[in-house]
Amino acid sequence: MKPDGAPGSEGRLHVRTRTGSYPVLVGRGLLQRLAGIVDEFASVDRVGLVTDDRVGPLHAERVAEQCRRAGLDVTYLTVPAGEASKTRESWSVLTDRMLDAGLGRDSAVIAVGGGVVTDLAGFVAATYLRGVPVVQVPTSYLAMIDASVGGKTGVDVRAGKNLVGAFHPPAVVVADTDVLATLPTVERAGGLVEGVKHGAALDEGHFEAFERAAPVLLDADADAAASYVLDSVRLKAEVVGTDEREAGYRQVLNFGHTIGHALESASGFALAHGAAVAHGMIAEADAGERAGVTAGGTRDRLEAVLRPLLAAAGARRLTLRPSDVSTFLRVDKKARRGRPRYVLLERVGSVSRGDNWTYELPDTLVQDVLTRLLDEA
Amino acid sequence: MKPDGAPGSEGRLHVRTRTGSYPVLVGRGLLQRLAGIVDEFASVDRVGLVTDDRVGPLHAERVAEQCRRAGLDVTYLTVPAGEASKTRESWSVLTDRMLDAGLGRDSAVIAVGGGVVTDLAGFVAATYLRGVPVVQVPTSYLAMIDASVGGKTGVDVRAGKNLVGAFHPPAVVVADTDVLATLPTVERAGGLVEGVKHGAALDEGHFEAFERAAPVLLDADADAAASYVLDSVRLKAEVVGTDEREAGYRQVLNFGHTIGHALESASGFALAHGAAVAHGMIAEADAGERAGVTAGGTRDRLEAVLRPLLAAAGARRLTLRPSDVSTFLRVDKKARRGRPRYVLLERVGSVSRGDNWTYELPDTLVQDVLTRLLDEA
Repeated sequence: MKPDGAPGSEGRLHVRTRTGSYPVLVGRGLLQRLAGIVDEFASVDRVGLVTDDRVGPLHAERVAEQCRRAGLDVTYLTVPAGEASKTRESWSVLTDRMLDAGLGRDSAVIAVGGGVVTDLAGFVAATYLRGVPVVQVPTSYLAMIDASVGGKTGVDVRAGKNLVGAFHPPAVVVADTDVLATLPTVERAGGLVEGVKHGAALDEGHFEAFERAAPVLLDADADAAASYVLDSVRLKAEVVGTDEREAGYRQVLNFGHTIGHALESASGFALAHGAAVAHGMIAEADAGERAGVTAGGTRDRLEAVLRPLLAAAGARRLTLRPSDVSTFLRVDKKARRGRPRYVLLERVGSVSRGDNWTYELPDTLVQDVLTRLLDEA
Repeated sequence: MKPDGAPGSEGRLHVRTRTGSYPVLVGRGLLQRLAGIVDEFASVDRVGLVTDDRVGPLHAERVAEQCRRAGLDVTYLTVPAGEASKTRESWSVLTDRMLDAGLGRDSAVIAVGGGVVTDLAGFVAATYLRGVPVVQVPTSYLAMIDASVGGKTGVDVRAGKNLVGAFHPPAVVVADTDVLATLPTVERAGGLVEGVKHGAALDEGHFEAFERAAPVLLDADADAAASYVLDSVRLKAEVVGTDEREAGYRQVLNFGHTIGHALESASGFALAHGAAVAHGMIAEADAGERAGVTAGGTRDRLEAVLRPLLAAAGARRLTLRPSDVSTFLRVDKKARRGRPRYVLLERVGSVSRGDNWTYELPDTLVQDVLTRLLDEA
């Protein structure tokens, strides 16, 4: 094993897109040589570096300094930490500040932060002068495993999360697992939920790897994290490479997210994304079992893994009524003719094909599922 | 020749994109069968129909009625006519109204209007749920010849025009030249400037076709317009098919636009786009001659064609100073390291290759060009 933070200890894979591919680098010490990576994969003279006011002092300020020393013209941009920054208003402000700085098409955006920053900065890059490259530097499990890979960018609006955005594949994704040590435990737990989702939907072996490694991953062991994140991203990359635009198969990655997103929206975004998706997976496994699609016992197996994560994520009791939640199911992006669609498992590690990988479910069944979820959660 | 507005009298061509191609239909009577065209090329159940309060009563309301009769669920959305609607605020409002109407991914946007509507509605479609199809129904020369073809969408911001947007190729473009009869003469003249640009940059024959047909085209003769628009779009389509993302050759379509956009911005958008580009082409031909790139006499030949269009466009004297304009040249999307780039002609019908199809010019030369332009214009 290489020493802590040794430059060069990295795993690498490539995500295919409709028009090419981009690399995802996962390992330790990558932030210490980020300027070189930017030069290799984005080849620009000027960058807008977007971060938040929590990650900035911890990591992004040093990244900015390193880029300046390497001769890049850096415009440093920061937003308040938290989901409330993922709005059209923040997007407008960041865009205007980059325009004021005179950044042209010879520029790139570097996003250093969690999912809020990578989604928001990605959308800025997608729409700035009709699109400039973005270098995604995720600093949370959530962003490493999920948000920064796959090209989805966007912001939240009144009607729900991520309803406005664009597909904008990054130039490169750089996931340095050394930074996870500075991530609060509640956020580590929330982000690992997406890894559990990759296992539950795509690969029982990955699910079991989490069952074994949960404590060290929660503890942010940088080597264990590098290995787990790389495997998890590889699973996602295989799906995204097959169906970048979510026309079909990519929807399997939305397991737990139909109900999860509705829970988040119904809570006014007070419920964290990871916790919402954990509840959503338990509920959608329940729904699948009730619909006769999912093998019996799947819900309980998921719950056994997810309850400790929910506890570590500091999730409080849900104080919502089923009707609060169903209102938001209607506007899910997968809805057809106003009817929500659900990704259902066959069993842990495998999604059921259904109609183009999703199912419509009877209202009464969904009602029963929500009632149980909200009674027990 | 078919009778006025006879369904079926159409020309058709295909614009290649990185991921496929889309058809452009040009002819008479197309609006009368738009619902069928939408069904053929977009195949959705629900549409957000975006128009403005001038084109709405003239054309879009009937289109909406026709779509409803064909069984489509239509959300009718209107903005005030004029460039002032091409903003992030309008984009937000249109998006929220579509979300409120519950439009899902089984929806498309239909844009019925001039360049403001096609650019704005295209950007709504590009970012709605990360992208839904858009059917472009241009109702002005500008939108038919230029704005609705090529996949560029976007809005204006404080720093300049079209600085925020996305590439989002339409599902189909439907240009019905019968509608040009309702277009005010000033807008006919302004839009035809882009046709002159296609001739000046790409094809001397097309330039000469305009010289011959200018009066009937200004008079909105629907058959002459169909023939001219189809030829003009074909020239643009060849360029866009070679370089959709404007990495290189597509920049030739920006002839006249570096100075043109700066004039528009410096005027606070009081100067119409067509008039600004006409001035921009004259100025950039002048610049090319001064730089020894453009054949002598090119500026004068352009001016001879464009002055009557400027007069018909009701363009008033420019009351700007050169320094007002040069401020905005710096933020042009083609700028590199804050230095503006210019597309220069070899002669009428041909652009000079330069460095990746653009040139940097000495400040003093640009200053002289602007001084002459603003003295004479």
